[in-house]
Amino acid sequence: MALSKTPYRGTRDFFPQDMRLRNYIFAKMSEVSEVYSYEPYDGPLLEEVSLYLAKSGEELINEQIYSFMDRGERHVAIRPEMTPTVARMVAQIHREVPKPLRWYAIPNLMRYEKPQKGRLREFWQYNADIFGAGIHGEVEIIQLCISILKSFGANSTHFDVHLNDRRIVDLIFKEFIKLDSEATHKLYKLVDRKNKMDADKFSAEVRVITQDETKAQIFEEYANLTMVEALKTFVSKFTEANQDFFQFYDNLKALGFAEYLVYDPSVVRGLDYYTGVVFEIFDKHPDNRRAVAGGGAYANLLQIFNEQPLEGVGVGLGEVPLTEFLKAHNLLPDVSRAQIDYLVSYIDQEGEALAMKVAAELRAHHKKTELLFGAQKPKKVFTSAEKKETSFVVFIGLDEAQNNQVKVKNLKTREETVYSYNDFFKTI
Amino acid sequence: MALSKTPYRGTRDFFPQDMRLRNYIFAKMSEVSEVYSYEPYDGPLLEEVSLYLAKSGEELINEQIYSFMDRGERHVAIRPEMTPTVARMVAQIHREVPKPLRWYAIPNLMRYEKPQKGRLREFWQYNADIFGAGIHGEVEIIQLCISILKSFGANSTHFDVHLNDRRIVDLIFKEFIKLDSEATHKLYKLVDRKNKMDADKFSAEVRVITQDETKAQIFEEYANLTMVEALKTFVSKFTEANQDFFQFYDNLKALGFAEYLVYDPSVVRGLDYYTGVVFEIFDKHPDNRRAVAGGGAYANLLQIFNEQPLEGVGVGLGEVPLTEFLKAHNLLPDVSRAQIDYLVSYIDQEGEALAMKVAAELRAHHKKTELLFGAQKPKKVFTSAEKKETSFVVFIGLDEAQNNQVKVKNLKTREETVYSYNDFFKTI
Repeated sequence: MALSKTPYRGTRDFFPQDMRLRNYIFAKMSEVSEVYSYEPYDGPLLEEVSLYLAKSGEELINEQIYSFMDRGERHVAIRPEMTPTVARMVAQIHREVPKPLRWYAIPNLMRYEKPQKGRLREFWQYNADIFGAGIHGEVEIIQLCISILKSFGANSTHFDVHLNDRRIVDLIFKEFIKLDSEATHKLYKLVDRKNKMDADKFSAEVRVITQDETKAQIFEEYANLTMVEALKTFVSKFTEANQDFFQFYDNLKALGFAEYLVYDPSVVRGLDYYTGVVFEIFDKHPDNRRAVAGGGAYANLLQIFNEQPLEGVGVGLGEVPLTEFLKAHNLLPDVSRAQIDYLVSYIDQEGEALAMKVAAELRAHHKKTELLFGAQKPKKVFTSAEKKETSFVVFIGLDEAQNNQVKVKNLKTREETVYSYNDFFKTI
Repeated sequence: MALSKTPYRGTRDFFPQDMRLRNYIFAKMSEVSEVYSYEPYDGPLLEEVSLYLAKSGEELINEQIYSFMDRGERHVAIRPEMTPTVARMVAQIHREVPKPLRWYAIPNLMRYEKPQKGRLREFWQYNADIFGAGIHGEVEIIQLCISILKSFGANSTHFDVHLNDRRIVDLIFKEFIKLDSEATHKLYKLVDRKNKMDADKFSAEVRVITQDETKAQIFEEYANLTMVEALKTFVSKFTEANQDFFQFYDNLKALGFAEYLVYDPSVVRGLDYYTGVVFEIFDKHPDNRRAVAGGGAYANLLQIFNEQPLEGVGVGLGEVPLTEFLKAHNLLPDVSRAQIDYLVSYIDQEGEALAMKVAAELRAHHKKTELLFGAQKPKKVFTSAEKKETSFVVFIGLDEAQNNQVKVKNLKTREETVYSYNDFFKTI
């Protein structure tokens, strides 16, 4: 039986056209990160399962992870996310290095999922974190994310940033509405599902949880807020104390980002992990209303290593939802053809040696150069040239071979010029 | 019990300094490949084990592979090499695409090995292949490899290219010495071990295999050759027919590569796979006498898919042996410090808003910019600046904040200038 030619379920073959697109996307992510002075890092493909258990608990591990015993009876997993790895790495060095640390990575990750649109088993995820920077870090990570999306040509007509703050939520739930932690937890879960629920059903469930009509009304008023300014007014009814979240918001506003920012009480994210600002970046396209990226601030990254607390702010941006987003808004570049500077050909077998020399010299000049093997008629050379985005074609015929000359055609201007070998390289 | 902070055995944490080095190495590999008009590709991290069994046989699979059953009872493995994946991908498209195909990738691979110098469980390997190009492809892949190593500053004092050709070897063993295929196979194995053997023992074993003093002498003369020119003379004693290998060699010589080329009868490589030129690039450093890269020409890449034959030439260059090579010759760049263009600081809290604005605007100008959080004394700012390779420091004091000005110090010239906000960005 012949072997299957298809890739393993939920994974992809990246043919050159696919890879050019991936490289384009990763290059933008890296460029913007470097411009924000974030430093690259990476970790191992495999980690011990105990690391994920400590961070995420049994459920994710058992259901979603590729894990197995190695030959030395170690229970290992292919990384399903980067945060445990970065925590492990930072735990090694945090005592000796100056803060803040700004790190980014674009690892390949695997999760055992049922493949569907925007969700695959193998995918790449951009991760950026800033450690030890307090609320300044919250502002910077949001800036960084917006800048990355802008680098692809996206703007506030394409996406918005849904913000929330765990400190604000706790203040409202515990101090204003005065719920115990069990009821608070239930409200968290409820508000997380709000956008998927009927309004009447939502109201009813609020009343079941709060057991109090006044509290229910306060909560509903809160749950329907969509602007940070309105949240400010809401909070000011209960307290005059300054809130970090509003300082954070004002900083982003001063930087000109107000048009991107939305308050969204339903953005909750990992309950046990995040402690400050949490956010999700949403696609505004009606056919692709989903989160492209998400993240937030956490107070205690290194707890699982029994290390002193280290606060941080992180973001994850998957290449699959990002690509869906860019596709929905027609922001993907045309990568259908490879781009080369010179196609070097010979019309006559006697031109081969010179053609090889010309191609080698063009490459030494850092020009993307393809050598067309075998003597070819000009018509066939042009056919080859058109299959790629080619700038110049070099022809070496009998005349050129005998006179050590180079005939070059500029495919844009259609201009054809014959140079001596040495003069040609002076023009480059 | 606290979790372990060390990475899984045989894998590495890439802290920013390590990652800068890896990025430097991968960027060179990619740049040179693009200059040779090779196109990027990638495949999945996991493949079905049957793919590796078909190509490499039981032994490698059982001993060296990370394999496991997935939840759907598929026997899968983390890729230990890239060739089976590239074969699978090419098998999907080879009928429709113009040849030759030139492809490269730098995948992460895993093998279950005992970690040692130059050998790890997780590593990256540069792979390049040209499909459907005949002996032209053999020349080009050697050129490409030499160009990659030259791009790191290496030259013929640092490495040489050990060449052999399976067609030549077959000619000598089967036609000149006239051995049956069992004895031929044994001589292959013997010559592969030659450099690790005592000369007397080698002579004795040759005689055991050939069972003929004349044949043994011919073989020994052959086995001691080190130059292609000497091989030419040797072959010409038996036949006047043209050999592709000598055409291949003459082409490389015409391109100026003679100083890199050595004939090495002991370079044999995968017996069932390679059919034309085979080569290994050796480090010349006395303390690191090992192969940095290797590859060769194969006639039948797609056999395991029951597809029509497709010939190709490939090379694999591991990042671990390459790094050892560059280290041995002191060719690694200094990546100890991150490089940034601007460190933006504020001396006074009132300068914070302007400092944030300046940093954002510098980033919009694609300048690598770090914003120093919190008001800091100039002395502390300089301490921060020195931790990285910083070109300029921006100070926003009370004066600058009140007058919308920017004070910039060029750390190279030690020049300090105060600009109006708008004038500053005109200078960039």
